[in-house]
Amino acid sequence: MRYGYLATMGTKPGHRDDLVKILLRGENGLRSAGCELYVVGHAESDPDTVWVYEVWRSKAHHDASLALPETRAAIAGAIPLLSGERTGQELLIAGGLGLPAEPRT
Amino acid sequence: MRYGYLATMGTKPGHRDDLVKILLRGENGLRSAGCELYVVGHAESDPDTVWVYEVWRSKAHHDASLALPETRAAIAGAIPLLSGERTGQELLIAGGLGLPAEPRT
Repeated sequence: MRYGYLATMGTKPGHRDDLVKILLRGENGLRSAGCELYVVGHAESDPDTVWVYEVWRSKAHHDASLALPETRAAIAGAIPLLSGERTGQELLIAGGLGLPAEPRT
Repeated sequence: MRYGYLATMGTKPGHRDDLVKILLRGENGLRSAGCELYVVGHAESDPDTVWVYEVWRSKAHHDASLALPETRAAIAGAIPLLSGERTGQELLIAGGLGLPAEPRT
């Protein structure tokens, strides 16, 4: 079953858009690593938090992606911007609009 | 800017998969209403909650979709299954993998 991950990441004041840019930079390499969705946003009520919603072919694809050079570069770039506040929620994805037609696990 | 909405919906015990089916049934009509993503899942730790992540071309598209016959039918079908516990979070979407190339607001 497809694997989802919903994360919120707090940034130091004023650095939200810098973090958004870093997170969107690695977008192209994600697809070949088994990522189906990687969507970055924020809530109007909270200027210093970034929300990321990810869907992967499987949890194994997600876990393996953490070792990719692009991922490690993004993490290294992000760390100085983070406040330390974060949440993460794993999900099992049933389906929906916007996913590739065939789950390829 | 694209509009996101993240919802959790509690179901009466044992009705999670019934709700998932109802939510996925309307999938086809959503695209023409301006919906770019509509992903349904659940968390392993909570058997009676459904998580929905939506991205729309704009908040206006989302709001207008609530009046569509398919949406009203889905809501009518869902209501008997719900526990009443729910959360909702509006988001502004910066971009990412899996969205159509051009924001068409």
